[in-house]
Amino acid sequence: MKKVYLDNNATTMMDPEAYEEMLPFFKEKYGNPNSLHDYGTQTHKALRNAVDTLYRCINAGDMDDIIVTSCATESINWTLKGVYFDKIYTGEKDHIITTSVEHPAVSATCAFLESLDTKVTRLGVDGDGQIDLNELKNAMTDKTALVSIMWANNETGTIFPIKEAVQIAHEGGALFHTDATQAVGKLKVDVKDVGVDFMSFSAHKFHGPKGIGGLYIKDSIKLTSLLHGGEHMGGRRSGTLNVPYIVAMAKALDNATKFIEMENVHVRRLRDKLEDALLSIPDVAVIGDRKYRTPNTILASIKGVEGEAMLWDLNKAGIAASTGSACASEALENNPIMEAIGADVELAHTALRLSLSRFNTEEEIDYAIDEIKKAITRLRSISSTFAYTPSWHKSGL
Amino acid sequence: MKKVYLDNNATTMMDPEAYEEMLPFFKEKYGNPNSLHDYGTQTHKALRNAVDTLYRCINAGDMDDIIVTSCATESINWTLKGVYFDKIYTGEKDHIITTSVEHPAVSATCAFLESLDTKVTRLGVDGDGQIDLNELKNAMTDKTALVSIMWANNETGTIFPIKEAVQIAHEGGALFHTDATQAVGKLKVDVKDVGVDFMSFSAHKFHGPKGIGGLYIKDSIKLTSLLHGGEHMGGRRSGTLNVPYIVAMAKALDNATKFIEMENVHVRRLRDKLEDALLSIPDVAVIGDRKYRTPNTILASIKGVEGEAMLWDLNKAGIAASTGSACASEALENNPIMEAIGADVELAHTALRLSLSRFNTEEEIDYAIDEIKKAITRLRSISSTFAYTPSWHKSGL
Ligand SMILES: Cc1ncc(COP(=O)(O)O)c(C=O)c1O
Ligand SMILES: Cc1ncc(COP(=O)(O)O)c(C=O)c1O
Repeated sequence: MKKVYLDNNATTMMDPEAYEEMLPFFKEKYGNPNSLHDYGTQTHKALRNAVDTLYRCINAGDMDDIIVTSCATESINWTLKGVYFDKIYTGEKDHIITTSVEHPAVSATCAFLESLDTKVTRLGVDGDGQIDLNELKNAMTDKTALVSIMWANNETGTIFPIKEAVQIAHEGGALFHTDATQAVGKLKVDVKDVGVDFMSFSAHKFHGPKGIGGLYIKDSIKLTSLLHGGEHMGGRRSGTLNVPYIVAMAKALDNATKFIEMENVHVRRLRDKLEDALLSIPDVAVIGDRKYRTPNTILASIKGVEGEAMLWDLNKAGIAASTGSACASEALENNPIMEAIGADVELAHTALRLSLSRFNTEEEIDYAIDEIKKAITRLRSISSTFAYTPSWHKSGL
Repeated sequence: MKKVYLDNNATTMMDPEAYEEMLPFFKEKYGNPNSLHDYGTQTHKALRNAVDTLYRCINAGDMDDIIVTSCATESINWTLKGVYFDKIYTGEKDHIITTSVEHPAVSATCAFLESLDTKVTRLGVDGDGQIDLNELKNAMTDKTALVSIMWANNETGTIFPIKEAVQIAHEGGALFHTDATQAVGKLKVDVKDVGVDFMSFSAHKFHGPKGIGGLYIKDSIKLTSLLHGGEHMGGRRSGTLNVPYIVAMAKALDNATKFIEMENVHVRRLRDKLEDALLSIPDVAVIGDRKYRTPNTILASIKGVEGEAMLWDLNKAGIAASTGSACASEALENNPIMEAIGADVELAHTALRLSLSRFNTEEEIDYAIDEIKKAITRLRSISSTFAYTPSWHKSGL
């Protein structure tokens, strides 16, 4: 059976080159990098190269830090809780601004800090899933410690105006963090240009392994550690270094960065083809303006087709998709992004997210288009909602 | 050249079987376990088996939790900071008891909590590196939130009386955490028998990969999360699951547990042979009674031989050893364990740690004995300390 993986915003296949580079560090060059003998020191060159690559790929400077963590979730928790201890626990500030469409790693951490008497403002979004910078301006107070806004949304692909938001935050004397988990490897990310203070990312979103990520810290800004302990990573993040994954993450990011142009041409073309095909079907809508989205993402709403039923039909045809973020699937709650953009219950239940990667082929997309059409026809034919709402029933299908 | 790895307390070679089991989860079964399609669900069986294995290997019960983390350092930070938020931040308690010979993951976290107005008592150790349970009893107050005592020490191998310490903590109404990083995979670890509330461990100490570990939590005790976010791990520890490493950690622990008997026979016999050979050299001492040590560890002090010089000589002969924990090496500070056991400056500078694994052979140990003897002879012949302290110079070498 054909297999087409269109769930790359949930996680990705490992880049075969990154995979090969990683393997010798499990059973051959397995020393602890902190050890003084050859088993330890023989990892140093690869680690140095890896860190240099990470710096280069996001255009970090000499005074900046990139600390390897176990995932974006850790980087995010570290930043938010670190700023809490440095600025809010001390009484200097009392306020964090974020958006209503962040990943749970941000939103749940903010809720936790709220329980510790931090004030949290959540910016709304419009029907395209976009924030309003004026709302950010108005929310700023002289007690705002941190503004945390994601670079791109995991469900809609919406890209946020980070550079402008950073300016507003800095003018108001606040630090700025961006969860760039869905941007790094998909979009050109230049930390010097946008001026963020902290940026979180996760390797498995750009064909690196799951369970490794990073936190970019501008100008070595002080940030209370989340993992206290030994002297690893300059004493900022303790824990024995995961050498194979560090090597793999760097190689994966290097390749993804080289392919950003391709992502913007090849992947975008395939995405647009798929999106055009979806939009040619009556009563299908796609959330957000294509121009302001990551080039690989479509969040569609298919009238009369329950999202999970759609997933099952596609899965039977070998196609992997999602109804939204993989984190939310386990919980089976209302999709918070759909709520935030003001979607009604039906929209929230008919969401289908398709997310491509550079490993997808035109043939795969053509196959997916056929199978999606078949599934819509079949599911609409048995859907009471769709059958009983003739006003929606236009010609075509 | 011969290669003999005797630094297994710093980190280990990956178990070849664990390595093989892990590989398919990078490029073939790479789905996010939370996804509803086949790429996600095809990981479920392996994950379930892995978690079952972890439970079985430490004799955890139905109501217990084992949460996968990125390392022991994370598990330790989580426990200490979680208990801080649950018991100390709330004003209910104000005190933590630990020892003066913990790994920096515990000691640095305790120092951080001290900066948040937590009272911390550090139990001393005797010349064998052993604690005194009466000192623990006397340190308990009705405000003691947590007692955190390592199961076995990373430098000396000293095993602590955890079961008795748990009883004292529980009688005083405190929770008990043990850093079992150097015990799991080397000693029989039965959490039900000892009754600990929390136990931290790290896979790379028992031939699993670096960058994965676990936290055992008795009876699903409430513990404020360190990584807030999505619904992973029952909402207790967020972050996309590192499927390959979870599979590998479980296989490695399963094999290590099967070999515990062997560890106690084969590894102990080789260790004792090496230790006897060392002790036959004049002016060599080994810290701690052999009976109360992990079967793989020797911390020796070699009069007149600077630890780092020794490492270089051994390294030239292909032998990997350590002067103490790998975490401390980077910092080049005084070894805190040596300070705690009351060692003088010379002892602290002449420490040599040799730590074996089940992958070491008798031939390797014989070779190591020869090379260690040669190195001692050479280094003593050029050592001013040794040459100028004739009282130490006994016959033999
Ligand atoms: C006793 C002890 N605790 C904690 C750790 C930390 O383990 P990790 O670096 O894997 O977090 C180590 C090893 O470095 C250790 O030996
Ligand atoms: C926008 C965003 N932030 C954070 C995360 C968390 O990444 P991880 O699970 O690797 O920590 C994800 C993915 O799950 C994401 O899409």
